[in-house]
Amino acid sequence: MNIAVDAMGGDYAPEVVVQGALRAARQLAVEITLVGREKAVREVMGRNDVASGIHVLHCDDVVRMHEIPIKAVRRKKDASIRVAFEHLRSGRVDAVVSAGNSGAAFAAGLLTMGKIKGIERPALAGVLPGERGPVILLDVGANVDCRPAHLFQFGIMAQAYGTACLGMTDPKIGLLNIGEEGVKGNELVRSAHELFTKSSLNFVGNVEGRDVLTGNVQIVVSDGFVGNIALKLLEGMANAVNNMVQSDMKRSFGGRLGLFFGRRALRTFGRRLDYEEYGGAPILGIKGVGIVCHGSSSPRAIQNAIKMAVRYVEQNFTGRLATSLAGFGHEYRL
Amino acid sequence: MNIAVDAMGGDYAPEVVVQGALRAARQLAVEITLVGREKAVREVMGRNDVASGIHVLHCDDVVRMHEIPIKAVRRKKDASIRVAFEHLRSGRVDAVVSAGNSGAAFAAGLLTMGKIKGIERPALAGVLPGERGPVILLDVGANVDCRPAHLFQFGIMAQAYGTACLGMTDPKIGLLNIGEEGVKGNELVRSAHELFTKSSLNFVGNVEGRDVLTGNVQIVVSDGFVGNIALKLLEGMANAVNNMVQSDMKRSFGGRLGLFFGRRALRTFGRRLDYEEYGGAPILGIKGVGIVCHGSSSPRAIQNAIKMAVRYVEQNFTGRLATSLAGFGHEYRL
Repeated sequence: MNIAVDAMGGDYAPEVVVQGALRAARQLAVEITLVGREKAVREVMGRNDVASGIHVLHCDDVVRMHEIPIKAVRRKKDASIRVAFEHLRSGRVDAVVSAGNSGAAFAAGLLTMGKIKGIERPALAGVLPGERGPVILLDVGANVDCRPAHLFQFGIMAQAYGTACLGMTDPKIGLLNIGEEGVKGNELVRSAHELFTKSSLNFVGNVEGRDVLTGNVQIVVSDGFVGNIALKLLEGMANAVNNMVQSDMKRSFGGRLGLFFGRRALRTFGRRLDYEEYGGAPILGIKGVGIVCHGSSSPRAIQNAIKMAVRYVEQNFTGRLATSLAGFGHEYRL
Repeated sequence: MNIAVDAMGGDYAPEVVVQGALRAARQLAVEITLVGREKAVREVMGRNDVASGIHVLHCDDVVRMHEIPIKAVRRKKDASIRVAFEHLRSGRVDAVVSAGNSGAAFAAGLLTMGKIKGIERPALAGVLPGERGPVILLDVGANVDCRPAHLFQFGIMAQAYGTACLGMTDPKIGLLNIGEEGVKGNELVRSAHELFTKSSLNFVGNVEGRDVLTGNVQIVVSDGFVGNIALKLLEGMANAVNNMVQSDMKRSFGGRLGLFFGRRALRTFGRRLDYEEYGGAPILGIKGVGIVCHGSSSPRAIQNAIKMAVRYVEQNFTGRLATSLAGFGHEYRL
């Protein structure tokens, strides 16, 4: 198996991305193709311990964080993210991982790979550490303005994804809203609520922000604007929480003792909330495995995203998603 | 001073609301008027320790959680939340606290008290426990569909509120968005970004979910749909975090020792994140002090909301807000 990694994507690229890729190569029996400016990539490789099975695919251009995704991807034919997905389409690699401009990664995946039959809007699915196992939140940023039917399709895709790849059995689906009652919310979610209610999905109704992590639902559906803000709030909270727990505990003698003895447990807890453990967000609904990571990903986050990509390729992610979607018959073609 | 408390509002009303009010009366030198069905209210009072200065104002009707706020408030002339605000307008009480249907509380406040001059859309302001002091998040649910000018006015109101009531000095304002760059986000926030940039406010640009609690900004502006979801995510997270810390620590001997010694510090930490400590969300932009609490408020949350109301009356909340707003001259009249 060969995973293409967008070496130029991310706030600390290529340094951190290459480091993460090298770690993954040492850990997993997988080839990795680093896509980007060869000179810069080789420089980082020169400073690190390089396993076998690392390839470098040179291309000159990069999509920057501030660029408008779709425009940049269309214009920059030699951008690393586009070249990476073209290699995926031609079968020279098996998946793409990028920590670059997430809109651009999504657009490149969509334009290059095309959509799975019947899906109108592919989406980015975040996997959150819920109290009772993983929770899928989607869309987490690819579709900023949505129609009700899009939200409904997100639910179907997440159902298929959770069942095929995350070991979920008949996952419960909730619609992220500002109240549990069907009359609550803006027009978008009120209409989506109707579509879900009429469907054969295991829809439990609206869920509020406070229910996202409780495990009462395994899938939380929202538009990409709200979903992205929610995802980042949870991440920020994880950091804030770690800082606050530590500073509160350091303030008393008992607390310091507690911190000493409980250090390992607190670290376990920190990791549970840490998005770096979860790799990245898969693009659902395109014909291929594309994983989008944070711009500020650490080497460990990149490493975990590559691990995620390997797992999804092994599990035949795209095929199983398509099969599962086909099972919904006409329901998802709106 | 006399605070009107909507005795019928909240998931556990009148029981929990009356208990909270009684606690506040014992703690603070304040009169409290319980507005609601006298028989039910007196029944709860009969089971509890009642301080002096508690009045009961009978009214028959209640706005329920599932009702459409504005319709219910207009139709139900004898609803507790409406009667409470009418008493505020006529000067018989000094503030209103309600844990009922928050939309209805907002609507009753708005219809009864009227808006401060120049304000188009009053808003609900949540006060969050940031890493470096309180952070104002608004709107947290009153205005589900907003125009850019509304978001801009939220910023001005929060500036005035933070300065007048929370001891903030030239607070930094951020716009809740899905990226730091001005081109990111949906149409609403992109246009609002322009208004803020041209203004004299201390606007630092877009903030993402992960920045909400860091203290880099003291004011976070969003529409009421996104703000409400964000607020409830943070609350849910606080619960989830407490559960997860404890269960992770119980899993090892060191962790159990840590939990034993660090118990008090962890409790302090839990309280920092606990919205009950922060009372409720004040309605900004109406001519009077109205505090909206959670439907699931505990007695302690009600007690703290009453404390908040007392403080705002003492601080001449409405007057100072109006003065501070006047300082912005024509800027906030759009």
